Amino acid sequence: MDLPVDERTRIRREAQHQVTDRAELHAILDDALVAHVAVVRDGLPLVLPFACARDGDTLLLHGSTGAGLLRLASGAPVCVEVTHLDGLVVARTSFDSSMRYRSAVVHGAAEVLEGEEKVAALETLTDHLLPGRTAEVRDATPKEQAATLVLRVPLASASVKVAAGPPDVDPDDHEPREVWSGLLPLRVVAQEPVAAPDVPAGVPVPESVRRAAAR
Amino acid sequence: MDLPVDERTRIRREAQHQVTDRAELHAILDDALVAHVAVVRDGLPLVLPFACARDGDTLLLHGSTGAGLLRLASGAPVCVEVTHLDGLVVARTSFDSSMRYRSAVVHGAAEVLEGEEKVAALETLTDHLLPGRTAEVRDATPKEQAATLVLRVPLASASVKVAAGPPDVDPDDHEPREVWSGLLPLRVVAQEPVAAPDVPAGVPVPESVRRAAAR
Repeated sequence: MDLPVDERTRIRREAQHQVTDRAELHAILDDALVAHVAVVRDGLPLVLPFACARDGDTLLLHGSTGAGLLRLASGAPVCVEVTHLDGLVVARTSFDSSMRYRSAVVHGAAEVLEGEEKVAALETLTDHLLPGRTAEVRDATPKEQAATLVLRVPLASASVKVAAGPPDVDPDDHEPREVWSGLLPLRVVAQEPVAAPDVPAGVPVPESVRRAAAR
Repeated sequence: MDLPVDERTRIRREAQHQVTDRAELHAILDDALVAHVAVVRDGLPLVLPFACARDGDTLLLHGSTGAGLLRLASGAPVCVEVTHLDGLVVARTSFDSSMRYRSAVVHGAAEVLEGEEKVAALETLTDHLLPGRTAEVRDATPKEQAATLVLRVPLASASVKVAAGPPDVDPDDHEPREVWSGLLPLRVVAQEPVAAPDVPAGVPVPESVRRAAAR
């Protein structure tokens, strides 16, 4: 089912980049390790970064019970934004220069998870950041679970905006072709994993870290 | 002068990571191409990504006059967040796993720039994204300038949080050392620039793009 376009989710600026395919929303969130979560606090806007993972048609956000924003967000309206900057579009003029990106903005109310749902959500978060990690480590203790807070935001209302592909070329723009134009692609890449000093010699980098490094 | 710590900017969660050195705030913003800008719209939170550039002790945000959020933000309270995810901390337990990051959250009122200030701000934005680009292209026309909107947010109230360095090691945590622990560093890197199809043969990739690719 396509993402509904309404007063809140309709994109006004560069509307040709709006995407209503839910699979694109899922792909953008699946590529994200951090989401930008906004709430209203004392009438003022507040936006903070949180670890995130998609779970079906919901987004999980991870924090500590000590984090004020997450307490505040419980049941309250939140706006969650994820943006991947895929490149800089270098036009022949500053004005036409722009960016290549994939961006999602989700509107909803956040729900605090408890019990079995919370345990499962924590595993989903861990395995999103480090694919397969939960099978390599012990289970969280009840005390550890209690000290962690997980929020779930439904993906019911969302705007997706994607600017992809090579720069637009206008043969009639009268700009000199000797001014270079093109795209500078950008990517997030992992460097070599660094073992903690107390890892015994011969313990290999685990599969989960190698999978995370390869994406 | 250090960043003031008050009710709004004091970090409650993992307070040991709070940094009050203004130079660190500047460095985090200087490494950012996109900032996450939150406002309150109809009583609800809204957060959107914008191109950004630091200018002295202010942050410039770039949009179009067609962008509703920027119109709304004019004079209104905004919260601007920038986060660099520098790595994943892989602990021996899911609970102790975390992230290496540098994060800034700025609170303020956004001001719309006009006239000479706006012209200068647009050049600052362009040269931040592509260092030296304004010297390689023609000046913006009055019509182009009119179609662009630049906001300026003072850096008077800001929280900076930095988690850096290798993972903490606790020799008494009783976790098995055979479970690998360490850091997976992450970086944003540029790929090879791609010329637009109408760039004549022999026109080299300009200095501005090479500088942007090297950072």
